[in-house]
Amino acid sequence: MIEIPLPDPEARTEALERLDALVKPLGALGRLEELAAWLCAAHGQVPPRPLDDVRVVVFAGDHGVSNVSAYPREVTAAMVRVFLAGKSGVNVLARQVGARVRVVDMGVDADLSDVPEAVRAFKIRQGSGSIDVEDALAPGEAGAAFEAGRQIADAEIADGADLLIPGDMGIGNTTVAAALVAATLGLPASDVVGTGTGVDEAGRERKISVVSHALARYSQSRAGSDPFELLTALGSACAAATAGFLVQGAARGVPVLLDGVFSGAAAVVAREIAPDAVRWWLAGHRSTEPSQAFALKALGLEPILDLGLRLGEGSGAVQAVPTLRAARAVIADMGLLADLA
Amino acid sequence: MIEIPLPDPEARTEALERLDALVKPLGALGRLEELAAWLCAAHGQVPPRPLDDVRVVVFAGDHGVSNVSAYPREVTAAMVRVFLAGKSGVNVLARQVGARVRVVDMGVDADLSDVPEAVRAFKIRQGSGSIDVEDALAPGEAGAAFEAGRQIADAEIADGADLLIPGDMGIGNTTVAAALVAATLGLPASDVVGTGTGVDEAGRERKISVVSHALARYSQSRAGSDPFELLTALGSACAAATAGFLVQGAARGVPVLLDGVFSGAAAVVAREIAPDAVRWWLAGHRSTEPSQAFALKALGLEPILDLGLRLGEGSGAVQAVPTLRAARAVIADMGLLADLA
Repeated sequence: MIEIPLPDPEARTEALERLDALVKPLGALGRLEELAAWLCAAHGQVPPRPLDDVRVVVFAGDHGVSNVSAYPREVTAAMVRVFLAGKSGVNVLARQVGARVRVVDMGVDADLSDVPEAVRAFKIRQGSGSIDVEDALAPGEAGAAFEAGRQIADAEIADGADLLIPGDMGIGNTTVAAALVAATLGLPASDVVGTGTGVDEAGRERKISVVSHALARYSQSRAGSDPFELLTALGSACAAATAGFLVQGAARGVPVLLDGVFSGAAAVVAREIAPDAVRWWLAGHRSTEPSQAFALKALGLEPILDLGLRLGEGSGAVQAVPTLRAARAVIADMGLLADLA
Repeated sequence: MIEIPLPDPEARTEALERLDALVKPLGALGRLEELAAWLCAAHGQVPPRPLDDVRVVVFAGDHGVSNVSAYPREVTAAMVRVFLAGKSGVNVLARQVGARVRVVDMGVDADLSDVPEAVRAFKIRQGSGSIDVEDALAPGEAGAAFEAGRQIADAEIADGADLLIPGDMGIGNTTVAAALVAATLGLPASDVVGTGTGVDEAGRERKISVVSHALARYSQSRAGSDPFELLTALGSACAAATAGFLVQGAARGVPVLLDGVFSGAAAVVAREIAPDAVRWWLAGHRSTEPSQAFALKALGLEPILDLGLRLGEGSGAVQAVPTLRAARAVIADMGLLADLA
C-alpha cells in the first residue's frame, strides 16, 4: 500500500477567490485558471511555487509484439544514443523550456554496454515476450521494474525536480499501450488500436490482431487479477517502470505531466495500484492514438495541448510546461480588480 | 494598393525535405512540422531565424454599442493604466515568453492626458458611434486609423520585431467584432454573437439585437461597398488600426500571430484590403466567441492553442509563441535519421 497525500482543498479555495479578484472578467483565463488552482492545491499555497526544475525521464525498451511497427527494433538502441547526444525531438523541445532529459534503458533488446552506467542501472531485460503468444515479463520483473520507476522518481525529486514528465521510446510500445488500456478498461482491440509511428491500414489490422490475441490470452488466464499480473502478461519493463514513476511522483506530492499514449496506458494501470495518485497528474498533450483518449477519459484528465504529435518521448508534455508556468504567473503577478483606479 | 510579398516556396520545399529527414517517424511532430515549414517559407531560409523579439500592441478604445457589456466603459481608461503598470493579463503572459507589450489609445472614451505621449499619439477620437443607430466613425477616420496601425507596425519592425501580435482592449469590442464578421461573411447576427466578457443570456439577446440593427442599417446604406466604408459604419478606430497593423506586418514580410475574436474580425476586413496578407498570418488561440471561428475558417487558419480564454489583450496569442519557437527548434537542432548508428 503506497500512501498518496491529498492536494490541499483550502489552498484551492483561496486560489479560486484570488482568480476571481484578478483584473479580468470572471473566468476569462479559461484553462489557465483551472491549472492555477490545481497547482495551488498541489503546493498547498497561493501562489504556487515556480516550476523551474522540470525533469523528463525517457523509459526506453523494445516491446514484444510481432511485426507491427514501421521500424526495426535496432532503432531502439540507436535512439538511446540519439538521446544521449541530445539530438532527439524531446531533447530539443526540452531545451526550449529549460527541462532536463534523462534516458534509462529498461528493456532495450541490445547490450548497451558502452552507455553510461546511470542509463543501464535499472535494466530489467533485453526486449520482452511477444504479448500475443506469451507473457511479456517473467515473474517478479514487473514488480522490479515498478520499484525501479519509483527509485528513478525519488532520485529526480531529491535532485530538485518540481515537475516530472514520463517519456517513452521503444519499438512496439503503442501496441502494448493499446493492450494495457483495453484490458484495464474492458475495450475491444479495434477501439484502441491506431497507426502508431505511421503504419498503413494493413499494419493497423496486424496490430489489432496482435492485441486481440493478447487480450484473449490474458482473459483466459488471469483477467481481473492484480495490475502487476497485467503488466507481466501484456506490459513491459517500460510500462511497469513508468507506472512506478507516476505513482512515486504522487506519493511525494510532486506534479506529474503525462505525455501521450504510453504514459496514458501506464497511468490507467498505475491507478489500479494507487487510486489517489491521479490527483497529482495532468495530461500534457492529446495523442493521435485512440487508446490515449480512452485512458484520459477514464482518468478524468483533459489534455492541455493538441498539436497532432505522435512522437512519444515526452515531446508533447514538455510543450505544455509554458502553459503551467503561465498559469502560475497569472495568479502570482496580475493586478487586482480592486486596484482599478 | 499595398504590395504584399509572397513567402518563399523553395524554402518551404527544402523545409519539408529536412523535416522528413529528422530522426523521427514521418510526420510525427504534427503541427510543429507545418509551422516549421511555414516559418521557413516566411523567412526564405532553412532553418528559419529565431523569433526572439516578439511585440504585442494592444489597441485600446471604447466601442459604440448600446448596453451590451458586463462592464462600464470607465473600465477601458482604467485598464490602460493597468497595462502601463505591467499588471494586465497580457503583460504577465508576455513576460513569460520575453515579449514586449505596448498599449496605444486609439479611441478610449476619456481624456488620458496623463499617460505618455507614445500611448496617445495615434488617438483618433473618444469612443465611437453606437453602431446600431449611427456610424461608428466620421468620414476619414477609418483611413486615418488604418494608417496609424501601419505606422505602429512599421515602428515595431524598425525596432527589431520578429513577430507581431495584435492585442485589443475595449468595452463593446466583441460586439463590433461580431458585426464586422457578419457583414463581411454574410452571416446573421445570431450566428456570430457570443457572451463576450461574460454577459448572461439576456445580455446575449441584447447583443444580437444590436448587431442585427447594425447589419440592417449597413445593408440599407452601403453593403458591398469598400472595407473602409464597413469600418466606418460598423467598426471602430481600434478595428481599423488593427487591420492596418495586420496588413503592414504582411507588407513588410513579418509574421503576425492573430489573437482572439477582435483580431479575427480585423483580419477578415484586412483581407478585403490586401488579400495576400493572410499568407503572413497565423492564428494563436481559439476564442470562445463564435465569430472568431467563422473568421478563421474564412481565412483558412487553424488556431495553435485552445485554452478556453476569452480575455482578449493578445493573451491567447502570446501563449502560442513557445510553439512557434519549438517548431523552429526542431528543424534547426534535431538529429537526422541518416546519423542513426
